[in-house]
Amino acid sequence: MAPVRNGKLIFNEIPSGYPEPGKTTIYDTQSVIDLETVQLDGGVLIKVLCLSADPFLRDKMRDPGIESFTPAYIIGEPTYGYGIGKVIRSEKEGFKAGDIVHTPVLGTFNLSSIHTTKHVDHSQKPEHVEYTVQKDFTDLEVIVPEPGLPLSVYLGAAGMPVESNSRPHRILCLEGVFQSQIGESTGETAFVTVAAGAVGSFVVQLAKLEGMKVITSAGSEDKLAFLKSLGADVAFNYKTTDTSEILVKEGPIDVYWDNAGGAILDAALGNAAVNARFIECGMISGYNSKEGALMKNLWNIVTRRISLNGFIAEDLNPKWKKEFFEVVPKKLVNGELKYREDITEGLEHAGEALLEVQLGRNTGKKIIIVAKE
Amino acid sequence: MAPVRNGKLIFNEIPSGYPEPGKTTIYDTQSVIDLETVQLDGGVLIKVLCLSADPFLRDKMRDPGIESFTPAYIIGEPTYGYGIGKVIRSEKEGFKAGDIVHTPVLGTFNLSSIHTTKHVDHSQKPEHVEYTVQKDFTDLEVIVPEPGLPLSVYLGAAGMPVESNSRPHRILCLEGVFQSQIGESTGETAFVTVAAGAVGSFVVQLAKLEGMKVITSAGSEDKLAFLKSLGADVAFNYKTTDTSEILVKEGPIDVYWDNAGGAILDAALGNAAVNARFIECGMISGYNSKEGALMKNLWNIVTRRISLNGFIAEDLNPKWKKEFFEVVPKKLVNGELKYREDITEGLEHAGEALLEVQLGRNTGKKIIIVAKE
Repeated sequence: MAPVRNGKLIFNEIPSGYPEPGKTTIYDTQSVIDLETVQLDGGVLIKVLCLSADPFLRDKMRDPGIESFTPAYIIGEPTYGYGIGKVIRSEKEGFKAGDIVHTPVLGTFNLSSIHTTKHVDHSQKPEHVEYTVQKDFTDLEVIVPEPGLPLSVYLGAAGMPVESNSRPHRILCLEGVFQSQIGESTGETAFVTVAAGAVGSFVVQLAKLEGMKVITSAGSEDKLAFLKSLGADVAFNYKTTDTSEILVKEGPIDVYWDNAGGAILDAALGNAAVNARFIECGMISGYNSKEGALMKNLWNIVTRRISLNGFIAEDLNPKWKKEFFEVVPKKLVNGELKYREDITEGLEHAGEALLEVQLGRNTGKKIIIVAKE
Repeated sequence: MAPVRNGKLIFNEIPSGYPEPGKTTIYDTQSVIDLETVQLDGGVLIKVLCLSADPFLRDKMRDPGIESFTPAYIIGEPTYGYGIGKVIRSEKEGFKAGDIVHTPVLGTFNLSSIHTTKHVDHSQKPEHVEYTVQKDFTDLEVIVPEPGLPLSVYLGAAGMPVESNSRPHRILCLEGVFQSQIGESTGETAFVTVAAGAVGSFVVQLAKLEGMKVITSAGSEDKLAFLKSLGADVAFNYKTTDTSEILVKEGPIDVYWDNAGGAILDAALGNAAVNARFIECGMISGYNSKEGALMKNLWNIVTRRISLNGFIAEDLNPKWKKEFFEVVPKKLVNGELKYREDITEGLEHAGEALLEVQLGRNTGKKIIIVAKE
């Protein structure tokens, strides 16, 4: 069999603001790979099927000299992230041709200290490529897909962004920290930002299961309709409506799920109830700006006894993963839990997909389909 | 006996920035009181001995239409705060002439919700006056002063600012919230701001007792020398030294005791260790400014899994008060715990004393001596 093309999304330049497809990333089709003869050296040859375009990947598009929670991409090498693939050939016990593999990319996160992330080995991918030979098996896992569930869902509703948050108590009170404080949250009010995204839409449903009033924000009418279909009590467009105005009217808020940061976090602080719990999952407003945010309501942290808790989903995986995969995929198939995907077809458009999630233009979990099974 | 003068500090005008003695507050000597005949109506006549000039009183000098954790002062009426006095006459069981009373002013705080603070009854003082008739006894307490301890210490090292923080574990991990996370803090690094003040100097000593490395900041050479005498490992002047530079060199910090807010809080976020705990006690930088603070490091809350917890000492009093008064005054007398006071003599200078604590010019707990016993 003749060598085939092995397209790759190459990290070409550190963006100063938003990533620019064709400039900060380039789709490269120069490489070829012979699927029958490529040396495996004890590894596994994987055909990449789908990739996850996550907002946090923007953090990897930085100067590698700057420390962060995840290693920086290397200029000239492929970008990478979470992915699902199919094993084509294997020289590793436990993996055989036809297996579906899931790569949580745990190894690219540093779980103990930010101070060594500069030096993390990049051998663990899955790269944003069509074919890849994997030789590090720390986090490569064979999955048995739930019948009826598209594989891509293992990157979204059944994947990284939500798997650590698989139970209401995990969503609304971070492990151990708040379990004693949350107590009965029925009747309390939650505010969920980036609510139509993979994480947000899951949080909204879990908060409703808890019996909370749920205020949600998103950036398009289409997303607001989706949020209403999930049971959100309030869904508003943060681009056209003042967040504070909504929160003054519908709040105060007891639980804030933050994926926004900046001015919206400030509005939430301004409209928080006494003993409010802020769950700091992400701050998309901060990924593309180094200017900082003008905060006027930080003082409320003291006067209203607000707690803010940052977390990284990876930290919580070891404890929750098993239960999650037993429970959640089934609920996604039977419709007890709803999800939505926004598909980009073709690795050649991966750069645009990465930009879209930064701009908040995706409607649902952003997936790049690289190949059909 | 002829009526005597009853001097009063009157709240005259809402300050736009710092309070201005003689303008936002006025010392009034027009009132007189007949100590023998003044009607008590079941109340207690108290001679005010000393008053506490606390930074948080600035919060009371606001438009009463703005909600906060403590009621606003009323224009034309005396200001008030924590105080110590002596009973002159009493019509109330449990209080007799000669008793020393301590007024935690609990009633002026709203413990359950910020949303009713506008309507809190102001009958509980102690007002910033020379003599007062108290008819509400909810929080008026007879104290038995520890021999050798000046009464004013019950407003500082043995009073409100620290009484809720009477144990190392209470200082470094707020009630229940962090006890599981703090674990062994020996060898960890704490950063304490406004460290030479009544609260800060106590925190520094408790953190040293915990075996922590303690970085401290204050605004004068005199205060830095005091901090060194308390055992601080690092003491720097935040007015002449860049906080970030110190923290880069001496950090990262595991525990941050915030009494500063603003740019210093931002520097602490920028130099926090993974899983750092920020204890949000106060934000003096925010009391006198409505402009807000430009924050560049909020994103670290997520990536470094930082927890921030606001608290109000009053919330914790019911649980810790008894043990505190059994343990702490003795340690203050025998020198096991050190404290420092900065005395202003005479109620006529109370306005200046309130300003000095806002400007950070006090060296130790600011006390206004109104009268000798």
